[in-house]
Amino acid sequence: MRGAVIHGPGDIRFEEREDPRILHPTDAIIRTVVTCVCGSDLWAYRGTDPITEPTPMGHEYVGIVEETGAEVTHVKPGQFVIGSFATSDNTCPNCLAGYQSNCTHREFMSTCQAEYIRIPNAHGTLVPTAEMPDPEHLPSLLTLSDVMGTGWYAAKAAEVKPGSTAVVVGDGAVGLCGVIAAKELGADRIIAMSRHEPRQKLARAFGATDIVTERGQDGIARIKELTNGVGADSVLECVGTKQSMAQALHSTRPGGNVGFVGVPHDVTLDGQELFFSHVGLRGGPAPVRGYLPDLIDRVLTGKINPGKVFDLTLPLDQVAQGYQAMDERRAIKALLTP
Amino acid sequence: MRGAVIHGPGDIRFEEREDPRILHPTDAIIRTVVTCVCGSDLWAYRGTDPITEPTPMGHEYVGIVEETGAEVTHVKPGQFVIGSFATSDNTCPNCLAGYQSNCTHREFMSTCQAEYIRIPNAHGTLVPTAEMPDPEHLPSLLTLSDVMGTGWYAAKAAEVKPGSTAVVVGDGAVGLCGVIAAKELGADRIIAMSRHEPRQKLARAFGATDIVTERGQDGIARIKELTNGVGADSVLECVGTKQSMAQALHSTRPGGNVGFVGVPHDVTLDGQELFFSHVGLRGGPAPVRGYLPDLIDRVLTGKINPGKVFDLTLPLDQVAQGYQAMDERRAIKALLTP
Repeated sequence: MRGAVIHGPGDIRFEEREDPRILHPTDAIIRTVVTCVCGSDLWAYRGTDPITEPTPMGHEYVGIVEETGAEVTHVKPGQFVIGSFATSDNTCPNCLAGYQSNCTHREFMSTCQAEYIRIPNAHGTLVPTAEMPDPEHLPSLLTLSDVMGTGWYAAKAAEVKPGSTAVVVGDGAVGLCGVIAAKELGADRIIAMSRHEPRQKLARAFGATDIVTERGQDGIARIKELTNGVGADSVLECVGTKQSMAQALHSTRPGGNVGFVGVPHDVTLDGQELFFSHVGLRGGPAPVRGYLPDLIDRVLTGKINPGKVFDLTLPLDQVAQGYQAMDERRAIKALLTP
Repeated sequence: MRGAVIHGPGDIRFEEREDPRILHPTDAIIRTVVTCVCGSDLWAYRGTDPITEPTPMGHEYVGIVEETGAEVTHVKPGQFVIGSFATSDNTCPNCLAGYQSNCTHREFMSTCQAEYIRIPNAHGTLVPTAEMPDPEHLPSLLTLSDVMGTGWYAAKAAEVKPGSTAVVVGDGAVGLCGVIAAKELGADRIIAMSRHEPRQKLARAFGATDIVTERGQDGIARIKELTNGVGADSVLECVGTKQSMAQALHSTRPGGNVGFVGVPHDVTLDGQELFFSHVGLRGGPAPVRGYLPDLIDRVLTGKINPGKVFDLTLPLDQVAQGYQAMDERRAIKALLTP
């Protein structure tokens, strides 16, 4: 089969790779229906995360079950399935506590920009739909394997509540999905920080009530101005840089909460500053598995349409162009069709 | 009048100071009934916090109202009152959100080891009791102005819930009060980390179910052993050092919470480590004002007896001996009677 492999910064190749096969009784093999490029894939593409050898890429997927290991009994070949970028057995203490993305058997997906994919922990990871979904729902269902689930977790970790004010830092696919999540969780006011007109439009379509284009001290001042002088109840940090984290922390009111889902790169927090801010902070890889049944339902009933974050569709063999378009911010997110 | 003044590390003097007087219409003057030495006073006493000039000390107090400014109408001279170490108007957005210790008019108390005290923001800060309390209740009521309120906040920030497991890092007065709080909030299992027998005994009397004497990696391993291999639901960090914060973060299960109330000294947090831990974190000066009515009731009805943390009582003019005894860990906390 063929799949994407990164050979160095900026060097994505679609090439022949070994067919995946069942290695453990809890594995499954799926045939990819659609997959995509994630903002976090750009850390490696841009050389921020080191690449020591040619490495398969991709962690977002929906597919058709091809083959199952002996212990995978809840899905059958031919069924349409969705799973998280972080696999889980769904029975360990962390899974039971709702943190499936910290499962004691967790393996992160990393080979999904390909025609076939091995899913470890398939017994706990894969969620089947009742029937083959309509093609129009495929992009939205695909977002549930990461970006929509991650935006949802950002909003939950930031404790968005009915009637509250939420700020979303970051206008990538995760940030935009964070806007959807904040709206679904009942925020009255949703302030999206974005300087890019197409993204601002999408944020508004998803439920943002205000757009803030300023950054740094000016951005913080603008948020204070919009929030009674004290800051927002909830801030969703969806980038992962020093600057975005500072933006998030200083935009939150005392006693408010930051949910941070951008993998932090070179971020350190000063204990005393955090202390006196009274801000609550929780981050991490999103426990997508727990949200899947609910989010699948919201997609299939048309309540949410996160698939709109895909503004570029390419055949899978043109995956390199998807990376390039996202790197140059010509595309928000690239959908790949095998 | 006379009061405590620090002149340098280890140099506390009880000396003549100017009588406090009403400076603003929201001020009150109280006559001290009892006051005490706080663990956090030791940061200056030990030279960790710099002392640039002779400085009055003390931030914990209960007293009798002597005089009130024109805007202080809810208490009258002669009434017994309790207030927080952090004053608040109780009407600003932060106060209304339950974070009175981040009041936009906040002034920290700092002159309370004295015969008379000026209370800024007295209109929002002071809570009177219905009548003059029995002498036996005075020590417990005094703890409400800081250490018991701070232990309470640590438990709330760590989201202690009925049936949960809580770990308390730090066996000073705040940590011991944190044990009381965890018990009142319904924790099933309360693990106190302490190496000092008298403090272990008090922790058990307050509701601790387990004592862990190990520290560092051994301490973390022991906590994991006691908590299903994953860590505790809630950890109360009541010290404020690099070591105690690391102990707290690594003793918490993924998705659990750390409430940190020891003022952080030289503590920085690695963003990526915090991210992958999934631990929620909230700290700060405790919003004691909001807890006072409830905690006063718990003391006066005999539900809690945090006054037991005072294992040394001295006349106020021997305040220096109180500091010395606490510095040498001969006393948990020194009560001072004018």
